[in-house]
Amino acid sequence: MSFLDRVAACNRHDLSRFRPFRVDGEQIGWVRPGLVAHMVGLPGVFEADGEGVRLAPGLRSFSERSAAMSEAIDALVAAGEIPPRRDEPYGVTTAWSRPALFAIDRCAAASFGVLAFGLHVNGYVARPDGLHLWIGTRAADRQVAPGKLDNIVAGGQPHGLTLQENLVKECAEEADIDRERALTARPAGALSYTLEVDRGLKRDVLFVYDLALPPDFVPRNTDGEIERFDLWPIEAVAARVRDTDDFKFNVGPVIIDFLIRHGLLTPDEPDYLEIVQGLRQ
Amino acid sequence: MSFLDRVAACNRHDLSRFRPFRVDGEQIGWVRPGLVAHMVGLPGVFEADGEGVRLAPGLRSFSERSAAMSEAIDALVAAGEIPPRRDEPYGVTTAWSRPALFAIDRCAAASFGVLAFGLHVNGYVARPDGLHLWIGTRAADRQVAPGKLDNIVAGGQPHGLTLQENLVKECAEEADIDRERALTARPAGALSYTLEVDRGLKRDVLFVYDLALPPDFVPRNTDGEIERFDLWPIEAVAARVRDTDDFKFNVGPVIIDFLIRHGLLTPDEPDYLEIVQGLRQ
Repeated sequence: MSFLDRVAACNRHDLSRFRPFRVDGEQIGWVRPGLVAHMVGLPGVFEADGEGVRLAPGLRSFSERSAAMSEAIDALVAAGEIPPRRDEPYGVTTAWSRPALFAIDRCAAASFGVLAFGLHVNGYVARPDGLHLWIGTRAADRQVAPGKLDNIVAGGQPHGLTLQENLVKECAEEADIDRERALTARPAGALSYTLEVDRGLKRDVLFVYDLALPPDFVPRNTDGEIERFDLWPIEAVAARVRDTDDFKFNVGPVIIDFLIRHGLLTPDEPDYLEIVQGLRQ
Repeated sequence: MSFLDRVAACNRHDLSRFRPFRVDGEQIGWVRPGLVAHMVGLPGVFEADGEGVRLAPGLRSFSERSAAMSEAIDALVAAGEIPPRRDEPYGVTTAWSRPALFAIDRCAAASFGVLAFGLHVNGYVARPDGLHLWIGTRAADRQVAPGKLDNIVAGGQPHGLTLQENLVKECAEEADIDRERALTARPAGALSYTLEVDRGLKRDVLFVYDLALPPDFVPRNTDGEIERFDLWPIEAVAARVRDTDDFKFNVGPVIIDFLIRHGLLTPDEPDYLEIVQGLRQ
């Protein structure tokens, strides 16, 4: 295994296995043909649109669209076509810089193949003996990636919160980091990937933050997502990312980006440019 | 003007105005149709290849190919089809991670539309009153971007040097930075862009370094490329990049990447994601 393998593992997909999902003439998602068939069976919400599906053009406003999508999601969850609700609203848009066209429950993001935004925080300690990174071990009872290694803080971006509000919220929930300290986290870029999964397509964009922590700070999880936190020397983190799949699939790339930005993964790595490019697809 | 405009300005091109240049069945460049016509008039070096042109398949080794290309470049320079020699050999490859198939003089890189590699150094001073960046003003007699603002050190990557050797060489020539100090520069990623110019297509990949400098260090140019150096507060650099085209076209993106990595350009910028993505095309 290699760093590039980790990046490639987030970008496996074949768009020929999906059909476009359009709103107002713009493509907003990618949907499996089986789900398209179920969607067009929900008249008033969806309509066939060439080889794909579109939101019924009569639904015009954010609230009309969101209400109709919510009913559709209930029907599709009941039919076992999409996974159960997670009660976290995601805004759906063609680009972060544009307003959301409607909101859906997070459970349906990959099924509809829409862009999903999130944030990851690298919590690091600059010790005299070198850079250390706080690594979480996800609880064994999690639906997503149980037992896998994780960043100190990471979370999806709910509709209606600013990034900074979400940063403060996730820092509190996941690591008991207070507001004042959370706001010292430094935005450092963004990663993106497109990953085909059974139920659909994960088109994720992750805003990345670096948070410098004092040597005496110890994170404490408050929402049950993380079972334990450990402070690792950065070399050990790098080796574990490179050589194993012990990290949650999208945490490896966040750490690889950290290594690159901090000059710890250098152009001596033969795949350097492919990795840099692969982190933003 | 905006930061995104600076990034977009490096990526203007229309590939329909170029024809493929292939070596051994692999596309290695993009050439204007007018130059293709001249190239196929040099038998033994080039051959027509569908709608494009290919290196004569009889030329097998690095040295055979480089010698033939050198003769061809002489003929094309003499015909006024490509600009004069710069006496700096560039390795030509389909990817940084693969060995060069041949070398050409730098003068012909854009005309043949091949990948060209280089390095840029952000020379910064972490002062108590904030981050400062050393900015060079290019000499008025330069062929390339006379009078424009520049990074403290930047240069093309010649064939036969490692990146690190080139970093040391360019630091010495452009800013009188000694070897020991140059080797403290921290690699921090890479940018890429594709820019159509009159003579062809610039497909550049820039390795980016951050070099922390002590407050009492003053750069001194030794090769005539830079007329003067000034230490600017980072906010002044950012505003000048955003609001003017006073910086050499590819220096703006290097500085924008620096601002992003150092948390000085944040997701509050509406075009944040488009900028992050646009820096690696």
